Amino acid sequence: MTNPTPHQFDEKGNLKHLLSLEGLKPHHLQKILSKAETFFEPHSKLIKPSSLLKGKTVVNLFFETSTRTRSTFELAAQKLSASVLNFNVSTSATSKGESLADTVKNLMAMQCDMFVIRHSASGAAQFVSTLLEPGIPVINAGDGCHAHPTQALLDVYTIRKHRGDLSKLNIAIVGDILHSRVARSQIQALHLMGVPEIRVIAPKTLLPQRTDALGVKVFHNLKDGLKDIDVIMMLRLQLERMEHALLPMGGAYYREFGLTREALAFANPNALIVHPGPINRGIEIESEIADSENAVILDQVTNGIAIRMAVMSLLADQQNLIGQP
Amino acid sequence: MTNPTPHQFDEKGNLKHLLSLEGLKPHHLQKILSKAETFFEPHSKLIKPSSLLKGKTVVNLFFETSTRTRSTFELAAQKLSASVLNFNVSTSATSKGESLADTVKNLMAMQCDMFVIRHSASGAAQFVSTLLEPGIPVINAGDGCHAHPTQALLDVYTIRKHRGDLSKLNIAIVGDILHSRVARSQIQALHLMGVPEIRVIAPKTLLPQRTDALGVKVFHNLKDGLKDIDVIMMLRLQLERMEHALLPMGGAYYREFGLTREALAFANPNALIVHPGPINRGIEIESEIADSENAVILDQVTNGIAIRMAVMSLLADQQNLIGQP
Amino acid sequence: MTNPTPHQFDEKGNLKHLLSLEGLKPHHLQKILSKAETFFEPHSKLIKPSSLLKGKTVVNLFFETSTRTRSTFELAAQKLSASVLNFNVSTSATSKGESLADTVKNLMAMQCDMFVIRHSASGAAQFVSTLLEPGIPVINAGDGCHAHPTQALLDVYTIRKHRGDLSKLNIAIVGDILHSRVARSQIQALHLMGVPEIRVIAPKTLLPQRTDALGVKVFHNLKDGLKDIDVIMMLRLQLERMEHALLPMGGAYYREFGLTREALAFANPNALIVHPGPINRGIEIESEIADSENAVILDQVTNGIAIRMAVMSLLADQQNLIGQP
Repeated sequence: MTNPTPHQFDEKGNLKHLLSLEGLKPHHLQKILSKAETFFEPHSKLIKPSSLLKGKTVVNLFFETSTRTRSTFELAAQKLSASVLNFNVSTSATSKGESLADTVKNLMAMQCDMFVIRHSASGAAQFVSTLLEPGIPVINAGDGCHAHPTQALLDVYTIRKHRGDLSKLNIAIVGDILHSRVARSQIQALHLMGVPEIRVIAPKTLLPQRTDALGVKVFHNLKDGLKDIDVIMMLRLQLERMEHALLPMGGAYYREFGLTREALAFANPNALIVHPGPINRGIEIESEIADSENAVILDQVTNGIAIRMAVMSLLADQQNLIGQP
Repeated sequence: MTNPTPHQFDEKGNLKHLLSLEGLKPHHLQKILSKAETFFEPHSKLIKPSSLLKGKTVVNLFFETSTRTRSTFELAAQKLSASVLNFNVSTSATSKGESLADTVKNLMAMQCDMFVIRHSASGAAQFVSTLLEPGIPVINAGDGCHAHPTQALLDVYTIRKHRGDLSKLNIAIVGDILHSRVARSQIQALHLMGVPEIRVIAPKTLLPQRTDALGVKVFHNLKDGLKDIDVIMMLRLQLERMEHALLPMGGAYYREFGLTREALAFANPNALIVHPGPINRGIEIESEIADSENAVILDQVTNGIAIRMAVMSLLADQQNLIGQP
Repeated sequence: MTNPTPHQFDEKGNLKHLLSLEGLKPHHLQKILSKAETFFEPHSKLIKPSSLLKGKTVVNLFFETSTRTRSTFELAAQKLSASVLNFNVSTSATSKGESLADTVKNLMAMQCDMFVIRHSASGAAQFVSTLLEPGIPVINAGDGCHAHPTQALLDVYTIRKHRGDLSKLNIAIVGDILHSRVARSQIQALHLMGVPEIRVIAPKTLLPQRTDALGVKVFHNLKDGLKDIDVIMMLRLQLERMEHALLPMGGAYYREFGLTREALAFANPNALIVHPGPINRGIEIESEIADSENAVILDQVTNGIAIRMAVMSLLADQQNLIGQP
């Protein structure tokens, strides 16, 4: 077995960390999705706390502000009975000049059993994984513009739950592909789930210069791109990440690429709408559509807890994951 | 039964949320106060953790800074074995432009079981309660100038503990009535406990324009107002809330309305003194008086934990609360 | 028995608080170090959570930013099954004008069972201890330039673990002695452990004016000072504490007092290197040396958790600690 991201696999092909979806096989995803299902009771109610991580400490090492993602990891850890250490960087020793490597080594010396990391630099999660002793998993909670694998996993979980087999769905990703770690991980996840046609819809300024390696069809016009589409994956306009004016300003983006009722009419009837949140109402999506029945944005949040419980519990028990289908 | 604040009662008159004391009956208060008593061992020692909220998640959703109130809710939840999620707004997605409603819906999707909310806007807690699914209680930890019901409950608990039956006590509230959510809830609580005479003592600039609906006697002179008074409820001068110069400056407030030994001599002997804290020594109260035996300010803090445990556990078990006396 | 720091001992000589190492006897240290050993499984693995502090609440009252020390106290408390309340001062009522004394009294009213305090004022921990009821221990996590006793305890624990009996070792402390609460506590700990020769090595501007009472030998030249030394205790250059230019700037400090390979060659072979962290690579220590086998900086972090567990559990059970050897 060739091993494209050696850092997240051991020599038998078991997943040691979750840094990105690169190199994963479809059966890896299936195991994670199936595990996530076990954390639900009927009626989408998450289970009462289990003791799967009892006695373990999960550190939330966040170098970027994110109450929402941090909270779902914290809740997931709590529901597995782990202790949680929130390690917030603005108040940490890095402000005293400590390097990322030294911070991580210190947390390892504190015998934290699992690292959840968010960082503004692409590759930070992988870098952290190289510093750790064997048996300490890293879960990438977003690194720069590179990857956000648990977000992509909860997206495909949500799509499968609401629309079934993804190999029968045409799916479009709309928005700022260029800066989006979410989009990168989503495209990988959709390929792994066998989606026949993946489209990206964005202005040229918000697309990478070379898109051919992504295995997607590119559209610069929203209505053309939505034709025959079953699932629309909206991205956030991350205004705080854009250093220069890369997008049409003053409502022009919304008029061209905002998901309005008018635009939505071009997609298939009852097209499912997912969005990683937080949503910018009236900027990338019409408010009423965000609240409509086909938008399952809040269900994504719930599923995100189950997905994170699944990834945490599978990585903690490394025997459980899976060289063979 | 007429239902003046429909949002906090169900159709049988059971309390679903605690948004304010409006519409509560005396027996509602009695049940909360009695429940709070069960959380004490002898010698005012709070009980060891009980498992009443085991497996539940309480979210502290604070849009205003308050380590003190947040801490007592956190401790109350811990003592009931709940998990606590501190959701701090300055670091949350609201800084990415998310609305209050979207933040709350996300926390609901995270399946938080109970909301404790503090917000600078009057009505925020009620607004939140309208967003939630049935069975998810909201506890108002202070909304703008509107209400702070658990503070008023711990105040009457403390008064009853130290001075017995409130229907035999004359009570005065001193200070900034105009801006005080605490005062509003206190007046309601005192009426419910049958206090025969409730006085408010404040300069005209710190009183609402119309006070007749409050059922209180108004005094603009501290010494006159304290005559025959058994309990003095001091308010904080919330300097940080006052945009304009509404009060006599430069020590003039203290000279006229500060609770000094000289002023205290006009009240009944051994008049009890309560204060919601944090106290401004030498601004609204003489330092020595704050530390005297008749001031029970720190006992209020302890009782606040028991009251919050009582409200949390009663709201969590909605059958336990009470349409009928 | 004379009692030099009455506040941390009771009348029988039992330790009630840990404010500094002043007045402790060697057997006090031995009991703490032995207790710390019981919190390790084989291979330096900290034990699974014990229930020694179950039902207790430990408050981390931090008036100075320190994610690292705060985290190890939090982890230590979690491993003893205590509840932890992180009370962060920048967001607390002190910003509403509340005094330290009132903040502490409020936390006592919240029935916190143990106080861990860090404050920029020397003597703050002792001041807090005078405010508390009997039976509520205070652990000093660093007060101004005065003391940081758990740091010194973890240092001697680490030295003993790696090099055995301290009464056979010559030890040098290098760096900013003047501003270092760590150095003050270390010197006391080394005396208590019977270290025959304790040296301090620093430029004159970073030494107290009078050093004769410290019982140390003073060196202003690193290479001279390191001769025959078995253990080198490096200090952090706390640039953030230095108001004026007290030290040679622009790399001159590193050239004269930085622990480089060249300087290290003057010490005994395999001299052990400890450092309280976070390290400033290339400022007080050469990066490669910080990562070498004889530097046990990360082991100190691990041992710090065990030492804090030992101090917490011994102080919580005041019978356990020890008037007689």
